[in-house]
Amino acid sequence: MSCVFRHGETACFCVFAEGLLSCSSHGRLCPSSSSISQRNNSSSAKLIVDHDQTTGVAVMHMQSPPVNSLSLDFLTEICITLEKLEMDKGCRGLIITSNQPKVFSAGLDILEMYGKSPERCGEFWKAVQEMWLKLYGSNMVTIAAINGSSPAGGCLMSMTCDYRIMADNPRYSIGLNETMLGIVAPFWFKETMVNTVGHRNTEMSLELGLLYKPAEALKIGLVDQLVPEDQVLSAATQTMTKWLAIPEHARQITKSMMRKPTIDKLCSNREADIQNFVSFITKESIQKSLRMYMEMLKQKKA
Amino acid sequence: MSCVFRHGETACFCVFAEGLLSCSSHGRLCPSSSSISQRNNSSSAKLIVDHDQTTGVAVMHMQSPPVNSLSLDFLTEICITLEKLEMDKGCRGLIITSNQPKVFSAGLDILEMYGKSPERCGEFWKAVQEMWLKLYGSNMVTIAAINGSSPAGGCLMSMTCDYRIMADNPRYSIGLNETMLGIVAPFWFKETMVNTVGHRNTEMSLELGLLYKPAEALKIGLVDQLVPEDQVLSAATQTMTKWLAIPEHARQITKSMMRKPTIDKLCSNREADIQNFVSFITKESIQKSLRMYMEMLKQKKA
Amino acid sequence: MSCVFRHGETACFCVFAEGLLSCSSHGRLCPSSSSISQRNNSSSAKLIVDHDQTTGVAVMHMQSPPVNSLSLDFLTEICITLEKLEMDKGCRGLIITSNQPKVFSAGLDILEMYGKSPERCGEFWKAVQEMWLKLYGSNMVTIAAINGSSPAGGCLMSMTCDYRIMADNPRYSIGLNETMLGIVAPFWFKETMVNTVGHRNTEMSLELGLLYKPAEALKIGLVDQLVPEDQVLSAATQTMTKWLAIPEHARQITKSMMRKPTIDKLCSNREADIQNFVSFITKESIQKSLRMYMEMLKQKKA
Repeated sequence: MSCVFRHGETACFCVFAEGLLSCSSHGRLCPSSSSISQRNNSSSAKLIVDHDQTTGVAVMHMQSPPVNSLSLDFLTEICITLEKLEMDKGCRGLIITSNQPKVFSAGLDILEMYGKSPERCGEFWKAVQEMWLKLYGSNMVTIAAINGSSPAGGCLMSMTCDYRIMADNPRYSIGLNETMLGIVAPFWFKETMVNTVGHRNTEMSLELGLLYKPAEALKIGLVDQLVPEDQVLSAATQTMTKWLAIPEHARQITKSMMRKPTIDKLCSNREADIQNFVSFITKESIQKSLRMYMEMLKQKKA
Repeated sequence: MSCVFRHGETACFCVFAEGLLSCSSHGRLCPSSSSISQRNNSSSAKLIVDHDQTTGVAVMHMQSPPVNSLSLDFLTEICITLEKLEMDKGCRGLIITSNQPKVFSAGLDILEMYGKSPERCGEFWKAVQEMWLKLYGSNMVTIAAINGSSPAGGCLMSMTCDYRIMADNPRYSIGLNETMLGIVAPFWFKETMVNTVGHRNTEMSLELGLLYKPAEALKIGLVDQLVPEDQVLSAATQTMTKWLAIPEHARQITKSMMRKPTIDKLCSNREADIQNFVSFITKESIQKSLRMYMEMLKQKKA
Repeated sequence: MSCVFRHGETACFCVFAEGLLSCSSHGRLCPSSSSISQRNNSSSAKLIVDHDQTTGVAVMHMQSPPVNSLSLDFLTEICITLEKLEMDKGCRGLIITSNQPKVFSAGLDILEMYGKSPERCGEFWKAVQEMWLKLYGSNMVTIAAINGSSPAGGCLMSMTCDYRIMADNPRYSIGLNETMLGIVAPFWFKETMVNTVGHRNTEMSLELGLLYKPAEALKIGLVDQLVPEDQVLSAATQTMTKWLAIPEHARQITKSMMRKPTIDKLCSNREADIQNFVSFITKESIQKSLRMYMEMLKQKKA
């Protein structure tokens, strides 16, 4: 049995899980499977959450075409979902993965930062903060099943998790590459990375806006494990089982002890951080950088 | 010549060291050797301290059967011994090792935390703090000769030293595994570990209560060197010679500069840390965890 | 075309760069080349700065015989040069290298610390601080082309750069070995090293006054890249090209975010740090240590 929780609906629908489980055993859920098709049909949600009540593990599949960009809408959906899962005592572990091909998440949606009013930019940034706060401070065991590229905000999302498993495909990359777009990762992105890969790796990584191939990411500790692409989700599930065997209360207090200083720093500077972002991003020179970057992306496609 | 200092006696007894030295050349002191037997006979102390006046190096052998658990009594003995050695200008280096087979120290004595009054728990915790403060802030060169398993408090003790040499025996392990017992390593355990293996290794290690095999411990930097089991003490002695050749005053100031921020944090929060420990450990749920853990240990033995 | 900037002169002299460039292609500038001879003849300056206006890269060659010791005079020259380059909008990258054989820089000039008045010692230390502040906080991309040994202050100088390339010659070494001289690296040396190689490597390194062979330095991250000795400068130039392709403003803000906390700590404790140095270095025991060290150096030479 598996409880399929669809964001935007107020109830959980329990369905037979055979289809899902057999699908899971092949690795990540393949969009052609019938159960997935049903879901796609049944909801406009960009998040599919499979919450297995027996194991206490929820798998959050991001499917915001084409590349799971973190728009204000999508961030809001993610935050609401996270809050519900967090409050659900039956949910002890969360696996985050992607239903989009080749990409985990392309990161913050540039369209939310380009040509928008300061108010809207501020609202957007507040949602980015909110997602980070919810994920980095989650009481659940969180595992990123990184089955595709994961630049910028996608990398941030991965780094907030307790454990990172990435597809061993050299076409994928991960990193905080904001600098390459002419923008600057804020201090809490930076601290999350320092906590993950240390000061020197972070310094070089952020100054150069580096994207790492999976093997490089493993070497510096940006991800914890590489597995063949079709085993990312099953490996995450296996790892989750180990983590959930740990005495829960002690694990949660320990996690909080490790992360609270970083979280507190944002909490006590939230408004200033928003102002900082808004005044930076609305600068003419930065808007120009973003426009150039978007044009470059368009040309790449064409 | 070697000065054998026995805790609890007010004087140092100088004896011919031939027996000891030949014993040392075989690695750690074996309990069946005659000089050790004499000591065992002569004192109820759980610590044998061989202080070689010519080299200025004291070797502190823990022998509190069966597994050098850190009880309040044993901690008090250790602290008094450390204080005496620290004030003895003839003692510049300290090697800590175990006379018990297969174990360096099993860590904090669970019996001191189970079914005890809050007052007693507080007294116990104060002694744990005291040991850490004395070791982490020692002016002596301190080397852990880890000739057996070293979980929890045993790992903490090792991490306070300037250098860690471990027996390359895959049956042994080392780590802060408190979480597995349902309890939480306090912030100064955490900071000692962060200072040793970095933030990310510490986070994963503490959340999962990981115990590392020697080879893994070496890889993440939890120990500095592996040697065959019968060479742990001789390797520690060799390393000590190198450390003692360093200009002493500069080395001490440097050590203090590296560790003072961490030490200061405990010093200015000592009472709160005790209260925190006492209120946590005396909780019914935690007491239950400890009971279950002890029953598991008993079943393992049987 | 290359603009040769000679410190102490108020103008830049533009000369044909053929000689320089062909020389660069052989690796580091060799003192026997004619263009260098000309410079040596033309100025008493201990710094040769080749500022290529087309690339925006300045190469600062240290040539203070015999070993680029950082005397008060030399430090002052370096600081004035750095300030000029920093304010020159045409200069976006700085490569620091040595024109002396076998040594990058031998570090702080011991003669400035031995037998000098407290006032003079304070003046000297202020210049050391100044160099560090200018380099660690530079808006330019800074690359150390370490073509020789780089102990103590030479290592500090290297660590302030954004990237370190070292000659792969096992006769060379790098490290903060102050402790071996009986003196103590101040907190900002320490923090620069912690930011580069982490807490534990720094602790052991500083306590023992370790000098690392290039391969070891690479392993702990004290340098970023090893190349054959004759390719150090060309490798630095290639790396510089990559760094200069990064959006500049974002890179600068990011660099500042990473380093500002450490810089601020010195800035708000500068006077106390000077007093601390002066009272330490003028102690009789420390002066004796320095004298013994200098005598040891003399005996080595003889």
